[in-house]
Amino acid sequence: MLAPAITLLTDFGTADGYVAEVKGVLTALATGVPLLDLSHDVPPQDVAFARLTVARYWRRFPVGTVHLVVVDPGVGTARAAIAVESEGRFLVGPDNGVLSPALFALDARIVALGVDAAASPTFHGRDVFAPAAARLATGTPLDLLGELHADAVRLRTPQPRRMPDGTLHGEILTIDRFGNAITNLAARDEGAVQVAGHSVRIVRTYGEAAPGELVALTGSGGFVEIAVREGHAAARLRLARGQPVVLTTALR
Amino acid sequence: MLAPAITLLTDFGTADGYVAEVKGVLTALATGVPLLDLSHDVPPQDVAFARLTVARYWRRFPVGTVHLVVVDPGVGTARAAIAVESEGRFLVGPDNGVLSPALFALDARIVALGVDAAASPTFHGRDVFAPAAARLATGTPLDLLGELHADAVRLRTPQPRRMPDGTLHGEILTIDRFGNAITNLAARDEGAVQVAGHSVRIVRTYGEAAPGELVALTGSGGFVEIAVREGHAAARLRLARGQPVVLTTALR
Amino acid sequence: MLAPAITLLTDFGTADGYVAEVKGVLTALATGVPLLDLSHDVPPQDVAFARLTVARYWRRFPVGTVHLVVVDPGVGTARAAIAVESEGRFLVGPDNGVLSPALFALDARIVALGVDAAASPTFHGRDVFAPAAARLATGTPLDLLGELHADAVRLRTPQPRRMPDGTLHGEILTIDRFGNAITNLAARDEGAVQVAGHSVRIVRTYGEAAPGELVALTGSGGFVEIAVREGHAAARLRLARGQPVVLTTALR
Repeated sequence: MLAPAITLLTDFGTADGYVAEVKGVLTALATGVPLLDLSHDVPPQDVAFARLTVARYWRRFPVGTVHLVVVDPGVGTARAAIAVESEGRFLVGPDNGVLSPALFALDARIVALGVDAAASPTFHGRDVFAPAAARLATGTPLDLLGELHADAVRLRTPQPRRMPDGTLHGEILTIDRFGNAITNLAARDEGAVQVAGHSVRIVRTYGEAAPGELVALTGSGGFVEIAVREGHAAARLRLARGQPVVLTTALR
Repeated sequence: MLAPAITLLTDFGTADGYVAEVKGVLTALATGVPLLDLSHDVPPQDVAFARLTVARYWRRFPVGTVHLVVVDPGVGTARAAIAVESEGRFLVGPDNGVLSPALFALDARIVALGVDAAASPTFHGRDVFAPAAARLATGTPLDLLGELHADAVRLRTPQPRRMPDGTLHGEILTIDRFGNAITNLAARDEGAVQVAGHSVRIVRTYGEAAPGELVALTGSGGFVEIAVREGHAAARLRLARGQPVVLTTALR
Repeated sequence: MLAPAITLLTDFGTADGYVAEVKGVLTALATGVPLLDLSHDVPPQDVAFARLTVARYWRRFPVGTVHLVVVDPGVGTARAAIAVESEGRFLVGPDNGVLSPALFALDARIVALGVDAAASPTFHGRDVFAPAAARLATGTPLDLLGELHADAVRLRTPQPRRMPDGTLHGEILTIDRFGNAITNLAARDEGAVQVAGHSVRIVRTYGEAAPGELVALTGSGGFVEIAVREGHAAARLRLARGQPVVLTTALR
């Protein structure tokens, strides 16, 4: 029984041959399983960024899918290499928190992968993670890949804080290609967001904004984001990751 | 009967998780249909650029292919979401002209897609277009996806103008990665092109040019392009989209 | 008998529609064969860079794989178009040395592809190489694609020179996305590398280095590389391709 797909998320970029080598291993060991590039453009060694990306996609794929995630600043150090089965999906990657979104599920099971002496100490993506992903994709049960690993690193998205005056203090988690600044404030239909000295009203759709208008609205991941219709909010307001945002509820 | 492929053209970039989410939906709803990335690097919200790209590829794929095209500055406004069947291929995307190359075929049929209330108002790529593409790729007839949509937006490439002196006045449509400036002048084997104060002779192949020489020749899309053999014409002449070019016929 | 995959390595970038057109041809002529992007971000017309990339991956894919490699500054000149069968894999591309890693195998067989009069003189990737790759991927024997081509261009990685004082003088071959400078010095476990005025000790794994420490170690391709743990060596030392490096053996 072959997996419906092996997905790839890495910070390798595509100019170098690293992605090519990983795909060679996967094609050799899991011939016939579709390989799907999700991104190779995670900022280099940016585990937090990759974790947020994994949160967006891992459960949208069908049961049986194998997610290979290699953002691994600790390669060649003592950090463990792990494989996870969670809600019917499989994930393979370093034990640095990047797989956290799948680790909080009640049925999540985690094993530590063995690292062969012949594995390159700088390229576990090719020599440790890809072979494990291929085995899972071709039907090897998780338990045969390694010993149970109890204490995996689990990272959480920072939560906004409720203040005595009723405002909610959060932060910008990430800025996307369109210049939208995605915050950690949960979905809202009304009120305003204070950011970088501006008060930005919350709308429900871009259709409620004029072209070029600065607004806040609930993005597709369920968080409030600061945006400019047909424009680039981050460039206009010089927004950056980690910058504070304050939600003020609308007067009723 | 599964489609030979679903192709993806977007302006999402690949660093963010948006492409990943779309692929999750497609894999879940159209398991077994190959997904082919064409580009996710369309300049953000650049409908004109994407339209020229669609023109290059949509008919090269075999009958039954589903082309998903999401360059959608109007997401969340009143613009329609459409699916098209044209010369045996299917296309899905916003009704903003980006699918125009397929809309001029005599047999083109267009339907307006319904937008579910649960669809994110900022991400129709995931919640409207991908599900429609998956249905077409798994054999659902076009007519079951929505009502006929008669008045779709159709954009055309600007045509060069013939002047009384016999010259043809056109413009630069796009500049490619190699620095070639692609014009809207139809294929020519002789004559010269005036551009940015230079008179550039037309050759048939790079073999007729010296390395580093500035020439004009018919590009692979059937239009005259300004190029430097083994060099970068746009950087050398500071060329940009929309810049005028004039074709002067060779003396006989 | 379909190939397990057709891989694509080009310098086309993905913003333009060139990759899309090539995939259209491949999908039309070799329906059902998976297409795998290896990279489209080879620096434009950089044959040497692409050759090093091909060396990393061509043999990792299973027997029967077809590797399409289009980095082709000489398109439209007299350079030949070739297809190669080597150790059970097939490679298709221009005869400019980019396929060299596969040409040194004892069983390598090379044919020159015919170029149809209708082929665009600027886009052999679409009109010459992709159709040949599709034929190989669908079972056409190599010999039916063209005449034997005896004198293909073969390029080699520059070799380090052994000096009378026992040092080995090499150079930086390439710099990867992580800022690691990959040299042409073969794998070492001890000693030091002199580069850009620094003496850098050789370690076996990143685990032996402190975060931020400059070290040399054997990279995943079997060559010594200059690296900074969790940092960017090339930026810190201003390293560039071709820069000299000297290996000094450790005192015993």
